[in-house]
Amino acid sequence: MHFHPTPRFPKGFSCASRNCGLKEKDKDLSLFASEVDAAAAAVFTLNQFPGAPVISGRKVILGGVVRAIVVNGKISNVATGDEGIRNVERMAQATADELGISPDTVLVSSTGVIGVQLPIEKIEAGIQGMKAELQDDPMVGALGMMTTDTHPKAVSLSVGEATITLVGKGSGMIEPNMATMLVYIMTDAKLSSGELDTMLRNSVHVSFNMLSVDTDTSTSDTCAILANGLAGSVDKDEFQKALTQGCIRMAEIMARDGEGAEHLLRVTVKNADREIEARKVAKSLVNSPLIKTMVHGADPNVGRILMAIGKCFDCKVNPERTSASINGHSVIKSGRRTDFEDAVVRAAFGEEVVDIEIDLGVGTFSATAFGCDLTAGYIGENAAYYSS
Amino acid sequence: MHFHPTPRFPKGFSCASRNCGLKEKDKDLSLFASEVDAAAAAVFTLNQFPGAPVISGRKVILGGVVRAIVVNGKISNVATGDEGIRNVERMAQATADELGISPDTVLVSSTGVIGVQLPIEKIEAGIQGMKAELQDDPMVGALGMMTTDTHPKAVSLSVGEATITLVGKGSGMIEPNMATMLVYIMTDAKLSSGELDTMLRNSVHVSFNMLSVDTDTSTSDTCAILANGLAGSVDKDEFQKALTQGCIRMAEIMARDGEGAEHLLRVTVKNADREIEARKVAKSLVNSPLIKTMVHGADPNVGRILMAIGKCFDCKVNPERTSASINGHSVIKSGRRTDFEDAVVRAAFGEEVVDIEIDLGVGTFSATAFGCDLTAGYIGENAAYYSS
Repeated sequence: MHFHPTPRFPKGFSCASRNCGLKEKDKDLSLFASEVDAAAAAVFTLNQFPGAPVISGRKVILGGVVRAIVVNGKISNVATGDEGIRNVERMAQATADELGISPDTVLVSSTGVIGVQLPIEKIEAGIQGMKAELQDDPMVGALGMMTTDTHPKAVSLSVGEATITLVGKGSGMIEPNMATMLVYIMTDAKLSSGELDTMLRNSVHVSFNMLSVDTDTSTSDTCAILANGLAGSVDKDEFQKALTQGCIRMAEIMARDGEGAEHLLRVTVKNADREIEARKVAKSLVNSPLIKTMVHGADPNVGRILMAIGKCFDCKVNPERTSASINGHSVIKSGRRTDFEDAVVRAAFGEEVVDIEIDLGVGTFSATAFGCDLTAGYIGENAAYYSS
Repeated sequence: MHFHPTPRFPKGFSCASRNCGLKEKDKDLSLFASEVDAAAAAVFTLNQFPGAPVISGRKVILGGVVRAIVVNGKISNVATGDEGIRNVERMAQATADELGISPDTVLVSSTGVIGVQLPIEKIEAGIQGMKAELQDDPMVGALGMMTTDTHPKAVSLSVGEATITLVGKGSGMIEPNMATMLVYIMTDAKLSSGELDTMLRNSVHVSFNMLSVDTDTSTSDTCAILANGLAGSVDKDEFQKALTQGCIRMAEIMARDGEGAEHLLRVTVKNADREIEARKVAKSLVNSPLIKTMVHGADPNVGRILMAIGKCFDCKVNPERTSASINGHSVIKSGRRTDFEDAVVRAAFGEEVVDIEIDLGVGTFSATAFGCDLTAGYIGENAAYYSS
């Protein structure tokens, strides 16, 4: 299992992207296609106001087969009622017509502003002719689904003869629960939709479900995996491991590109009493505005670490056994600030990746959460997102 | 029951404040005293790393009688071990010596940086001579307990012959659970410590426990009430109502003075299925960074309201019945954006107080939460708080 230096598609997958007039000139429409039927599984947002594409997508995934994914940026098609559902169907039909496939095998996503109807004719017109533009660089497809992302996101890795490629977008309104913003995973390994479903849930549990930019769970979160089998069978344990590594890498890329972020913040909690407690404490730290601003300001105000652990009221902690380090420098021991040199910890905060490791000393369970620092850039982007 | 235009003390209470050398020149030490024994009750933080003053304060409150409160700013005496506890005892003893009372009747608080020992000699020296400076303006005491507060905070109101005076501080690391940062409530009504305990919990439930500046629960939260009886008996229902009004007013003042805040954000949820769900949804909105930045940016990106309701996964919602308004302007109806004029809602966001009202339409329970907008000022203060 190894990551490729440049992302590439598995056998039989391709993509294209275009500007269809939703944005002024940036790409706003992407199409991903498999030459043959792909077994599929997906997880979607738990938000109780799911977008129309999520409502429709759940039905498509029940069929277990996907041939294409079509996705637009700028408008999310959320809180759009029956007209929203009809527009998802029209996007699927236009894609099916373009590729000569069944609309039941087209997964549709939309991302952007909530509560506005899609200009569906523009999208339908945009889809026409995309078949001829299908090509083999996943970054081209990643480009057409960006919102506040500062760069397109794709990674790929090998497992045996097969390739796994993840294409994603996401930088705000991110605290997934079951999935993240939009991540499409394509592989040429031969796996059933049932196998994919189990493996996807295992991998998402420790990656996208531990990712939080701002505690806000999107109404559009979708993470889907497509396996077209063109590379044949793979060792399932190895595939699971590779899939998890790929998902973690993509979660880290998304956290690092969180709105306004300048650091990837990775918090690992060890020796918790239960797995759910390790996860909760790790999330408490990546979500704490005071931890996030500490990382941003490089200010070793490490008492905030104790605050963020201690506010997990229902988790077992013991101040005497609690220790913490920042990029390997011990800052808390037995619940007390150590005699660290301020300058050393300040320098550690200067690293692009800041790892905070907590040892709760009360059990054997671990978890890692992925987040980012909180900067004035986040405020600027979100105080004026709608009008931009 | 009415609020006084200028805060005043109940009969028999007085205060003083000083600079004792913890801060460069601002006041950093306050003393509140009752001429006679006062029945007392208090609620403290649920954070699992409570400060030494909270650990000691719980014991003082068990006694049910308080004569004085002494509080310092700049350093919170949290995560300071046995030495921290001894320093609380030394502060209580110095206060008892100064006032000629028992140290068991002195409630001690400290607020500021976590993980640093108090320079206890400076505080002990500072307490000496404060008795002679006791005077009757509560704002003087509020001054000595400020951290990032932009102004001292005190309100008072009458109930029958009695007065209730609340003195508080708090502008960051605030999502109380059982209490808020530091609020001392003094009254000359005659009430037992048992009665005070019940009434305090009732009032805190709908005020400080619905206040959140940044979701971060302090290790020092303390809300205490002292009743010295000098104004005799009061109607208990009226007293409860007045106490609740006073606590809500103080919660609003704190939210408005949240770190970097430019608006008080008040979210009322109506017609929820259960009280706890009304509280949860209201808190979800005041805590959502995307709602807070929307208020800051005056941008009517109202789909975020649906997102913040919908991410309360375990609360009963029905998109068809969900409506919302901003300062009286309907922005969501039946789960859909209304045809409001952008300019009208932008103007509403320009008000100092922004009221978002949600109608869930699925039950009969209501709750109001108090918060503020999220600005670059919050980032600036907290990225460099320690060194400042």
